[in-house]
Amino acid sequence: MSYYVAPVARLIEEFEKMPGIGHKTAQRLAFYVLDMPAAAVDNMIKAIDSAKKNISYCTCCQNLTDINPCRICSNSKRDGSLLSVVENPRDVIAMEKTREYHGLYHVLHGAISPMSGIGPEDIKIKELLDRVKNNEIQEVIMATDPNIEGEATAMYISKLLKPLGIKVTRIAHGIPIGGDLEYTDEVTLTKAIEGRREI
Amino acid sequence: MSYYVAPVARLIEEFEKMPGIGHKTAQRLAFYVLDMPAAAVDNMIKAIDSAKKNISYCTCCQNLTDINPCRICSNSKRDGSLLSVVENPRDVIAMEKTREYHGLYHVLHGAISPMSGIGPEDIKIKELLDRVKNNEIQEVIMATDPNIEGEATAMYISKLLKPLGIKVTRIAHGIPIGGDLEYTDEVTLTKAIEGRREI
Repeated sequence: MSYYVAPVARLIEEFEKMPGIGHKTAQRLAFYVLDMPAAAVDNMIKAIDSAKKNISYCTCCQNLTDINPCRICSNSKRDGSLLSVVENPRDVIAMEKTREYHGLYHVLHGAISPMSGIGPEDIKIKELLDRVKNNEIQEVIMATDPNIEGEATAMYISKLLKPLGIKVTRIAHGIPIGGDLEYTDEVTLTKAIEGRREI
Repeated sequence: MSYYVAPVARLIEEFEKMPGIGHKTAQRLAFYVLDMPAAAVDNMIKAIDSAKKNISYCTCCQNLTDINPCRICSNSKRDGSLLSVVENPRDVIAMEKTREYHGLYHVLHGAISPMSGIGPEDIKIKELLDRVKNNEIQEVIMATDPNIEGEATAMYISKLLKPLGIKVTRIAHGIPIGGDLEYTDEVTLTKAIEGRREI
């Protein structure tokens, strides 16, 4: 039984569906919305509506975009011979923030994970292969996450790409800058030693 | 400079305005919304809109309600001689969940806090006085929070109500059930000793 009047209960329920939002947080957000000026609530509704209606996947790189092809794919200043394969749109943002990468992207929207029932056909691998075959791409950087699923996905894709004569590389694993050797886990430290470079 | 396309950036910004939602959480929520089915997004928008449009303050108790007077104020089975004064609508829910309280409520929508510039005229004290004068209320339970602002508010209101010949009580302070004497702070323990009862 809910102690809240129906519209409030429904709003709390909607917020609760979101990731990382528990019941208490959903309550707090709902009461915040009820206290907001009507114009601010309208703005919020419009932002949700417009994001959902105007954002789609770029037919080329599968990233989220409001124009098609997206700004990165249609930017002639970017290096069309270099392609980074990432798991999701947030990874593109992370790469862009480095300001050091000027190639293109391909967003898989997930990683192969048999445990969660996600196979190669569930993520955008087919689109990647079609793209690589029809373009002047010379190097593909596998920038999937350094976990079991990400590694498996990187291995799987590299096996498909190598026969096409394309150079496939993997981003380096090691100790993060500002990290502490003492507190680095064994797997990372092993990778860091394996990947050592002459200075 | 935002790395996101405008509608996504705007949505992240809207979520970020909410209490307890930082930039990273706002990003996660925004991407969740973009991944939601269109019908689910519509439901969310409708829930926000309907909560905002249909919920108002009960003219009697100042609690949030979709009908006026609210279900508690208009419930003839409740004890009209007993009134609990609380700071906000969530406190009403907390009291209702006990299932032991059958009186009425008055929601102040805040507490007196000179530090934050909230004076007696900024919360619903005038409405409380009008209500007490015109009704058969015999006891007012001050159920404001047990902190400086809540205590000050309780004291302030009790001084206004006592000359009207109304019994004013304060909820008990003490060690919470399931709490640990060892880890109880001194102020709470002092209150618990002061408020000891014969068994």
